[in-house]
Amino acid sequence: MQRPPFFDVRIGGATAERRLGRDDLVAAVLADVAGGRLPPGARLPPVRALHLRLGISKNTAQAAYEELVARGVLETRPREGVFVARGDAEAHDPVPLRCAAAAPVEVRPTRLVMRKPAPGVLELSKVFIDPTLLPRERLADCLRSVLHQPGLHEFYDFQGYPPLREIIAKRLQGRGMDVRADDVVTTVGSQQALDLVGRCLQGRRIAVENPTYMNARPLFESQGHSVVGLSLDPFEGVPLAHWEDVLVRERPSLMYLVTSFQNPSGYSYGTDELLALLELSARHGVALFEDDWGSDMLSGTEYRPTLRALGGREVLYANSFTKKLLPSLRIGFLVGNERTVPALVEAKRLSILGHSMLQEAALAEFLDRGYYDAHLARLHEELDRRYHACLEALHEHMPAGVRWTTPGGGPTLWLELPRVVPLRELEARMAARGIQVELPGLHFLGRPHLHGFAIGYAYNPPERLQEGLLALGQELRAWL
Amino acid sequence: MQRPPFFDVRIGGATAERRLGRDDLVAAVLADVAGGRLPPGARLPPVRALHLRLGISKNTAQAAYEELVARGVLETRPREGVFVARGDAEAHDPVPLRCAAAAPVEVRPTRLVMRKPAPGVLELSKVFIDPTLLPRERLADCLRSVLHQPGLHEFYDFQGYPPLREIIAKRLQGRGMDVRADDVVTTVGSQQALDLVGRCLQGRRIAVENPTYMNARPLFESQGHSVVGLSLDPFEGVPLAHWEDVLVRERPSLMYLVTSFQNPSGYSYGTDELLALLELSARHGVALFEDDWGSDMLSGTEYRPTLRALGGREVLYANSFTKKLLPSLRIGFLVGNERTVPALVEAKRLSILGHSMLQEAALAEFLDRGYYDAHLARLHEELDRRYHACLEALHEHMPAGVRWTTPGGGPTLWLELPRVVPLRELEARMAARGIQVELPGLHFLGRPHLHGFAIGYAYNPPERLQEGLLALGQELRAWL
Repeated sequence: MQRPPFFDVRIGGATAERRLGRDDLVAAVLADVAGGRLPPGARLPPVRALHLRLGISKNTAQAAYEELVARGVLETRPREGVFVARGDAEAHDPVPLRCAAAAPVEVRPTRLVMRKPAPGVLELSKVFIDPTLLPRERLADCLRSVLHQPGLHEFYDFQGYPPLREIIAKRLQGRGMDVRADDVVTTVGSQQALDLVGRCLQGRRIAVENPTYMNARPLFESQGHSVVGLSLDPFEGVPLAHWEDVLVRERPSLMYLVTSFQNPSGYSYGTDELLALLELSARHGVALFEDDWGSDMLSGTEYRPTLRALGGREVLYANSFTKKLLPSLRIGFLVGNERTVPALVEAKRLSILGHSMLQEAALAEFLDRGYYDAHLARLHEELDRRYHACLEALHEHMPAGVRWTTPGGGPTLWLELPRVVPLRELEARMAARGIQVELPGLHFLGRPHLHGFAIGYAYNPPERLQEGLLALGQELRAWL
Repeated sequence: MQRPPFFDVRIGGATAERRLGRDDLVAAVLADVAGGRLPPGARLPPVRALHLRLGISKNTAQAAYEELVARGVLETRPREGVFVARGDAEAHDPVPLRCAAAAPVEVRPTRLVMRKPAPGVLELSKVFIDPTLLPRERLADCLRSVLHQPGLHEFYDFQGYPPLREIIAKRLQGRGMDVRADDVVTTVGSQQALDLVGRCLQGRRIAVENPTYMNARPLFESQGHSVVGLSLDPFEGVPLAHWEDVLVRERPSLMYLVTSFQNPSGYSYGTDELLALLELSARHGVALFEDDWGSDMLSGTEYRPTLRALGGREVLYANSFTKKLLPSLRIGFLVGNERTVPALVEAKRLSILGHSMLQEAALAEFLDRGYYDAHLARLHEELDRRYHACLEALHEHMPAGVRWTTPGGGPTLWLELPRVVPLRELEARMAARGIQVELPGLHFLGRPHLHGFAIGYAYNPPERLQEGLLALGQELRAWL
């Protein structure tokens, strides 16, 4: 049985002048009972608690209680403790449960359900990388190594573990970006990078691609920004004149752009488009925030160009290790400059103080040992294989009229279907075969101008993906 | 030397009808050059990149480039690649760096500096626990064990790792709180718990203790809330009538209270005060948000009572493992009810998606194996010893006129000095002796009604603390 909580005796604190004795305790209880702070039936602290708290001996405390029982102020109950005496003979009530007022929180509709599908379901649109390709053992080694180093655990660094920021800066420099360790702020995934920028941003309007990363718009809107769409067709590229019209008309203060393997369209900006966007940014005073989740997720030749590399230190830049290492690490980062970083760090401090130094240090060690580059090289090779197998399977199984993009990297491509195909019905038929396709919802602002969904070749082994695309082709032939 | 980024050739995507060949590539380059998307001097993709992206053979791509060179549209430069031919004979310029517009971020003054003191400095006011008392080895075991389990890394759970939420709920139930796993939301330390509540809260006014936890007020204010103070003197307790006046006059929608071992005052609310606050909450419609960082940081007898235990499911409740386990883990949690949790989870999803499942799973295992209870038991014993040594040292070294609270647990007590002691000068003199005291700054709303600082007995070994208090006593005698 759980005993009711005891009521503290109000003893004002200790002073240099004297130590507390029996009479102090007696006087304090009498004052609290007289003042109503110790109501009839209230349980007194056990003598052990008085000893621990006040440093007075248990005998002294016991003597005080005995004195008060003798005076009829307190009463003892076997195996329950010492209580303030009641005038009547009623059974004592337990401490009544009082109800606090309800918190007036705003319940937003949770429109995103991250469904964990039943085991065995083939997730055809998944944007993650196959977990079997991830370097768990080496990461475990780094974590354990870090747990043995002294001094780490004491502080978290608001801006992020300095050696990790150093390594990140050096890697980005190697890709042509002007980035110093002081420009880097670590984040809880890249989602927090978006949160921090949104928290700091003056101006209340943000332009995003349409379709855009699903969690960007609800976040920015929850922060009081309005969001305008820049229409993007992954088969056509950036309609610059149209975007410029939108910028002139809507006057956003920031463009948020996913420049490589855009989620969900799979589109990658060409160098000409990046240069043109930098011109638009300068001409119309619209800042750029580049979400570069994927420029190193391509096989083979070179990293993709970035706005930060081409446009310099004013471009805000975010990236993360979520897709390429263990997603459950939740380590991303944000890159600014000497003017923006103080605000971003302050926003981070206010929202989480700091991220896990343990994981940041383990990641720094992982990078420093060269494990990450080795992992990426192996990963690229496997992703290549899967990408090409996906292209082959599409050629083999898709009926005429179906189109798809050829991103050449990243985890997904966009599959565009003729309008005669009813997407919801297709989704249901595929689900009946144990295959999940994810129809874009929150990605679009307004009515979707695309009619399709992403195909994820990084998540599924080629054989599974071929199975899924074979089934998709069969279902599509109901309409095509 | 870093090569300039290549310009993509615009090839619209693949279709079910046909595969791309040499003539498609030639036509695409010609169209891009004619349309200005491939300007003179632009570098073309290496054939390997074309192969990887489009799945066309390198020979086919090479043949297309040779055809275009023969036509004078492209030119090759040894060891550099293939470029769009220039009409003139000028040396080619590197891709010019364009400057993006500056991001209009709001730079808040970073008023908190978490100074890392020089090695050997005695930090007398530190609120953390001595890292040598923390169970690093056992935590490392749990992390490694978790890294070997399959299936963990794939997803993060927005609300938090379900088995961890189960265990947390069960532990809180054992302390008399009505909490189910569905009521628990894991957070990045308890700072994020404050952030989530602030994000969801309707109403724009929050009442906090004065002094209060240093990072609470700037956070709430950054979210657009106004903050009103409820004056607290750790030697006197809660002035209920005064607080009620403030609630009636200012009409806050929420009271944010640190009910055990309050930071920075070290004050713990008595059961009578908690019950009275629940009545105030119900009477005036002010919700309660309890920050319970410390109720299990007391030695010996019983957990301290909480508003959540006494007041039921409407009380919002936050706690964390930061102080009691590795601070660098950054795992805290927030407890609501079926009405508040959906909003809190949505706010968490928008700000970080999810926390590290790896660490949450390792913590769940740590709790499940009984390591945490064993650790707490040992920790309590050591903290007891340090607390009593601190009380002894204070009795021994403090001059007359100095007072201190006797919290009986938690990491700090409040040392109150006579007003004749100039705190800044005392701080400087102590610093000259290699001892750091932290004068409260952001903790107070308005002019401080207390004149002192916290003494941290959990962080420093008793001998070191005695040293520090001896020095403090000596310095104080300059004025007392």
